[in-house]
Amino acid sequence: MSAYDPDNIFAKILRNEIPSVEIFQNKNSLAIMDAFPQSKGHALLIPTAPSRNLLDADPKHLGLVIKDVQKLAIASKAAFNADGVRVAQFNEASAGQTVFHLHFHIIPAFEGVHLAPHASQMADMDELTAHAELLRAHLS
Amino acid sequence: MSAYDPDNIFAKILRNEIPSVEIFQNKNSLAIMDAFPQSKGHALLIPTAPSRNLLDADPKHLGLVIKDVQKLAIASKAAFNADGVRVAQFNEASAGQTVFHLHFHIIPAFEGVHLAPHASQMADMDELTAHAELLRAHLS
Repeated sequence: MSAYDPDNIFAKILRNEIPSVEIFQNKNSLAIMDAFPQSKGHALLIPTAPSRNLLDADPKHLGLVIKDVQKLAIASKAAFNADGVRVAQFNEASAGQTVFHLHFHIIPAFEGVHLAPHASQMADMDELTAHAELLRAHLS
Repeated sequence: MSAYDPDNIFAKILRNEIPSVEIFQNKNSLAIMDAFPQSKGHALLIPTAPSRNLLDADPKHLGLVIKDVQKLAIASKAAFNADGVRVAQFNEASAGQTVFHLHFHIIPAFEGVHLAPHASQMADMDELTAHAELLRAHLS
């Protein structure tokens, strides 16, 4: 496995070097909207601690972060009145990982709607901002 | 969301009422081979505590269980000499959940090999048993 690259896009977002549509941030996690959503409301939970993926993550930090994944999944179902929620976490390119900083996809599921491949162009920023607001309103 | 049904198939496996190909079990988790694998080595991490899925899980238990998910993912990559590992967790039928007891899929990924849909018939038991042994040998 390659070493962690501190110049990956999520590391830059965590350092506020590039913008993102933020849902919430705390000591352990940053939650943002996926700019190339596979579904309406597709969010990302990014641990603040640097690790390439799950395979080299600090287990203790992971134990804290998964609680934020859960909070975001619960909010996701409620905010978008979804029928379900997919949680996915990919390790290495062959598994679908494209940014090499650990992250969890939280993707609302709707009856009869198939999951789209990653969007080929960036989502509308106003829409992402509205979705982030909806998610914040449903966080408990 | 519907209530937890204590007669779901994973609850029965946890009670030893029906057999499974076990990888390991501890106080928090049971790891077994998926009987309908989407890829060679497809494993499942099943928390011992009853919850329908991530949405109603006890956060404290979740914080412990995710460490077993990580252990199994690390073993999965090593045991099958995989190029990567997918971790997926589905909530409700529309998201792909078919058994209504929380579980995490841990699926080895191989360069150039696309993920198969769930197998339509049960995998060969001898092969699953051999895969479980391989995984055990790579647990640290």
